[in-house]
Amino acid sequence: MKKFINQKEAIIEQMLQGIVKTNPKLQRVEGYNVLYDKTYDPNKVALISGGGSGHEPSHLGYIGKGMLSAAVAGEIFTSPTPDQVEAAINALDSKVGTLLIIKNYTGDKLNFEIAQQLAQASGKAVETVLVNDDVAVENSTWTIGRRGIAGTVFVHKIAGAMAQRGAGLSEVKRVAQKVVDNVRSFGLSLNSIIIPTTGKESFNLPGDEIEFGLGIHGEPGIKRTKMKRSQELIKEMLDLILKDFDYQNAEVALLVNGLGGTPELELYIAANDALEYLASLNITIYQTKVGNFMTSLEMQGISLSLLKLDSELKDLLKRGNRG
Amino acid sequence: MKKFINQKEAIIEQMLQGIVKTNPKLQRVEGYNVLYDKTYDPNKVALISGGGSGHEPSHLGYIGKGMLSAAVAGEIFTSPTPDQVEAAINALDSKVGTLLIIKNYTGDKLNFEIAQQLAQASGKAVETVLVNDDVAVENSTWTIGRRGIAGTVFVHKIAGAMAQRGAGLSEVKRVAQKVVDNVRSFGLSLNSIIIPTTGKESFNLPGDEIEFGLGIHGEPGIKRTKMKRSQELIKEMLDLILKDFDYQNAEVALLVNGLGGTPELELYIAANDALEYLASLNITIYQTKVGNFMTSLEMQGISLSLLKLDSELKDLLKRGNRG
Repeated sequence: MKKFINQKEAIIEQMLQGIVKTNPKLQRVEGYNVLYDKTYDPNKVALISGGGSGHEPSHLGYIGKGMLSAAVAGEIFTSPTPDQVEAAINALDSKVGTLLIIKNYTGDKLNFEIAQQLAQASGKAVETVLVNDDVAVENSTWTIGRRGIAGTVFVHKIAGAMAQRGAGLSEVKRVAQKVVDNVRSFGLSLNSIIIPTTGKESFNLPGDEIEFGLGIHGEPGIKRTKMKRSQELIKEMLDLILKDFDYQNAEVALLVNGLGGTPELELYIAANDALEYLASLNITIYQTKVGNFMTSLEMQGISLSLLKLDSELKDLLKRGNRG
Repeated sequence: MKKFINQKEAIIEQMLQGIVKTNPKLQRVEGYNVLYDKTYDPNKVALISGGGSGHEPSHLGYIGKGMLSAAVAGEIFTSPTPDQVEAAINALDSKVGTLLIIKNYTGDKLNFEIAQQLAQASGKAVETVLVNDDVAVENSTWTIGRRGIAGTVFVHKIAGAMAQRGAGLSEVKRVAQKVVDNVRSFGLSLNSIIIPTTGKESFNLPGDEIEFGLGIHGEPGIKRTKMKRSQELIKEMLDLILKDFDYQNAEVALLVNGLGGTPELELYIAANDALEYLASLNITIYQTKVGNFMTSLEMQGISLSLLKLDSELKDLLKRGNRG
């Protein structure tokens, strides 16, 4: 295995140390794999997300003004335990309440909800929102219902802007849920990845095949096909999203997400293909973001996310950009 | 070959279209592979860089206020021709002069200097700065002298801040040269890459070996070794940089650069290792940036760059951050 790691059991610890040392505004909760924004104002709603590691910059990279107040890092592709999430809630100690943004995986949902109950039992106002944007499969290896993938980043951005504006917990939860209701995603991968803790491939993919509808932990997609041109792959992905949700007659935000090992050059070709196809369907794009937002280690793959906007979401997306 | 591309001959064209469509502040020079900042003020020094494509976000991703005014994209790993560079100079048409930031490769140096001469012949003030920060090898496949790699990004940032401040051409060139004089880099790769235009590997690297001192086009490094722990690799890289240049008794900026396919998790482990080792040598770190700044397609590798700062460079680095 060729990876920039040291002791396998110290991977998360050393990553966290590296992030804290290079980001002066971040603080670690002592004894926990939790980072938070030193400048967080406890008079604002606290936003906490997290999950298994290996998806960086999700979620640790989204801590800051106008986005997450804290993030919790589990082991690689493994949900953080409830005490870790509770430590994040307690460290921020919001006076107006906390919203937990959970990607829909069985472990994450269970552990974040236990943390919510523990915090509620000690008198804290804690709500959750569950992101399940992946239209590829209904149930999956680690999921009942749809998986949460890169569309989650829109929730961070828009709920973060709402919290920054000083809105109360129910209002922040309402816009977060509105994003969930209006965002859909689909991903595919060209190759497998090596899990650093085991040194093994997460799945096996023959030389000229791709996994269509893949999850961000290497969970199976809906089919394997031979490699095709970007234009064809992007069209197939968008068709599946558009079959699931109506993006006509509204402005739409597009996220072209690299899964970690995709060259930026290819991400922009894919973005161009997506924009050309959406234009041919008369779907109006308000903004497009291109980059590695939610990765799966070194996976060479792409996911596309579409978010249907209304005037409130547009305004919050803009505020986020200014924040 | 599994890549998000369409026609091989349209790779650069479609990438450029994707970048322009998703970045409203960028404008293309019609008929050329040149992008520029729509908001560029011709009363300020114009900064132009570029080179072969495949290193994104270098250099197209650095166009904007306080950094590059324009960037020129060659074919993959191939210098842009002089007429492309000249088109960038003419499109910006600075009233106070243009600085060309060139990475030291034979083709780039030749073509940018011919463009300089053509523009000078038509009465324009054009200067150049040559970046040669890679301490790994003296001459290389496509280089006489040292190669220019990720340290170039410091030149963009600091010269860009100086130009934004309204400094004249000689002053902008002076600080750019000061960065070149004080920056050193070293890179290594864990794997080879597939050149999309040929479908072939850029070099061959056996399963458990790494290329130490590799260039950003897959040029040979100084040795091949078995994979080691990140701490050992980082120490060896830093030792070679520190043998070349004295970073004691000054504040230093550190760039931990991913070569395109390295998971962010590993970049932060490497950053942590670098900071621990530099601290053990009593080298004072002013700031650390971690991410994909100058890539080589999907290469899983890292380069480290150190820049020795004085009060002027620190001030410009800060201004850049605000810009």
